[in-house]
Amino acid sequence: MNINFFMPTKVIMSEECIIKNAELIKEYGVKALIVTGGNSAELSGALSDVITALQNQGISYDIYNRIHSNPSIASVYEGAAYAREIKAEFIIGIGGGSPMDASKAIALLAVQQLKEEELFSGQYGTQALPLILVPTTAGTGSEVTPYSILTNDAKQTKTSISSPLLFPKIAFLDARYTKSLPMSITINTALDALSHAIEGMLSVRSTFVSNALASESIYRITQCLRSLSPSKVLGVEHQLSIDIREKLLCGSMFAGVVIAHTGTTVVHAMGYCLTYFKDVDHGRANGLILPSFLRFIAKHDPEQVKRVLTAMGVASMDEFEALFLRLLGEREQITTKELERYVSIASQAKNRTNSKVVPTKEDIENIYTRSLTIV
Amino acid sequence: MNINFFMPTKVIMSEECIIKNAELIKEYGVKALIVTGGNSAELSGALSDVITALQNQGISYDIYNRIHSNPSIASVYEGAAYAREIKAEFIIGIGGGSPMDASKAIALLAVQQLKEEELFSGQYGTQALPLILVPTTAGTGSEVTPYSILTNDAKQTKTSISSPLLFPKIAFLDARYTKSLPMSITINTALDALSHAIEGMLSVRSTFVSNALASESIYRITQCLRSLSPSKVLGVEHQLSIDIREKLLCGSMFAGVVIAHTGTTVVHAMGYCLTYFKDVDHGRANGLILPSFLRFIAKHDPEQVKRVLTAMGVASMDEFEALFLRLLGEREQITTKELERYVSIASQAKNRTNSKVVPTKEDIENIYTRSLTIV
Repeated sequence: MNINFFMPTKVIMSEECIIKNAELIKEYGVKALIVTGGNSAELSGALSDVITALQNQGISYDIYNRIHSNPSIASVYEGAAYAREIKAEFIIGIGGGSPMDASKAIALLAVQQLKEEELFSGQYGTQALPLILVPTTAGTGSEVTPYSILTNDAKQTKTSISSPLLFPKIAFLDARYTKSLPMSITINTALDALSHAIEGMLSVRSTFVSNALASESIYRITQCLRSLSPSKVLGVEHQLSIDIREKLLCGSMFAGVVIAHTGTTVVHAMGYCLTYFKDVDHGRANGLILPSFLRFIAKHDPEQVKRVLTAMGVASMDEFEALFLRLLGEREQITTKELERYVSIASQAKNRTNSKVVPTKEDIENIYTRSLTIV
Repeated sequence: MNINFFMPTKVIMSEECIIKNAELIKEYGVKALIVTGGNSAELSGALSDVITALQNQGISYDIYNRIHSNPSIASVYEGAAYAREIKAEFIIGIGGGSPMDASKAIALLAVQQLKEEELFSGQYGTQALPLILVPTTAGTGSEVTPYSILTNDAKQTKTSISSPLLFPKIAFLDARYTKSLPMSITINTALDALSHAIEGMLSVRSTFVSNALASESIYRITQCLRSLSPSKVLGVEHQLSIDIREKLLCGSMFAGVVIAHTGTTVVHAMGYCLTYFKDVDHGRANGLILPSFLRFIAKHDPEQVKRVLTAMGVASMDEFEALFLRLLGEREQITTKELERYVSIASQAKNRTNSKVVPTKEDIENIYTRSLTIV
């Protein structure tokens, strides 16, 4: 039995957890840089709570709110320069995966002079600014991982920085912040989280510990997925109970702990192409690929897939696929030329070999073909 | 949903994990103090592996091997003085709960001048020496908790120091080190671990996260308990498969993570009296008390006990008790006078109020009476 477990982030989850635990923040300094993606931090109420907590503790702050979806390398260098300029002692990232991942890179680059070509090298110094994260979606799990995933134009995909330095000091989880999300984002982010937990179970690096966490995450998220529906009229999403929102947020955090240990599989690499070239939301991209990937695994090692379905409480691959189809609606189209390009890029991704059954280039093509409409 | 999760220890479990990961140790300095209880560190093979790892990394060391079972306050002050004398930069604790708990107190006292009356105050400075722990039993979970439990003669019981400073930097888990244990210790320590996980489930501080870990731990340990037998002849214990030993060690570590978050209940407080006054092994003491404590909970909140039994895969309280009786054999005797004293001490323990159903003094007396033979 081989286990490696390391997740040093302090996770605090409750309603109003930031305000209630504001005194924990002052350990990290008297000047914070808040990193956000713009509106969602404000809309969700998280920004206002963070500012109140900082004011209560006499901590001054500036805000860098120029992080877009699938953050660019330029934006994290700009954010890091700003952190240095204002002499930030620590970073608070608020948002979905994009602002959180960008915050991590900013925390690193604020104290390490890394050239762009060194950014994904895995060779880093020993310091980063302390980081506090506040998720406003329930999907990425970034608040408990050592990964920062950025858009890498040189490789025409998304690439991750991975370092224990990127583990946040504190993750504050308040499910109320997910109330303002459109239903489509609630669904996509839930599919992202579920994909993390399932990919973690199928990973060569899965352990007794990661599987226990993955099972729990898969069970909770699947329960919630059954009560989500893309057809709900505008406004109805706000009625999603706080209980379901908390389960999703907690399940997503668990799934984050899983991938912090197992990494992801080719599902993510394949999804990145859809995001990079077709602007498909990251969670949706994973959701599109996952059923066909599972069918591929089932062909070679049905026991593995059975464990996933059992954890979900789902009777068969058909039921699994039906659940996903209902949530995803009409699938995206790609041309055969696009297909060729995506297959080429995804086959070169590091995480292709991270699943116990390793897909060949041909397998990847088949999975794309089954997952999308090829025109 | 309220969750607080913080467990910053890096857990590494595999055969030969210390030798294989020796380079992780050098981060903490070039001079180590190894803290052990004497023979078991040597017999288990752990001491030799630690020394090899230190030598491979060019780290010098001294050994303080004067920690006895249920370590005294005097011994940790002596160990801390020795750590200062040799200018140890970090501590490596090897052994069961006693050497590991003592190592933690030594790591704290080596850099903090705390008077004896301040030792259990909860008011500590910000520093302790970095600590690496190597369990040689599968029970205490101390390798992943922020607790150091010492014999407190002033209170005639065992009392814990609790501080995040006491979390080890690394826990190395190699199940081969448990091979040299007598079957009685394998059983007692397994009962200790099971008790941690069960008490964690019954705790007012239990959360979604701690319950998920507790369930997993309870399930694995119970599976193993069924294959343990106190009647095995001397020598046969060595044939216990490494698979079972690993499950026990992993289950015990999980249970440690549970109590790191939930604390223990009155079961531990009641057990401490048996250990302090009658020298009953700590794990056995918990095992003696636990069935009657569970029956007491069942009377007031049967759902809670049902969850525990379900996690164990046990059909009823009768089956639970039968499993424990088989492992524990004849129960200890105490006099009515002893009973009175233990009830008085256990009723004053902090953890009495930590279970969702809080036992009164009378309840504690009943639990003792059902658990032991009163003469």
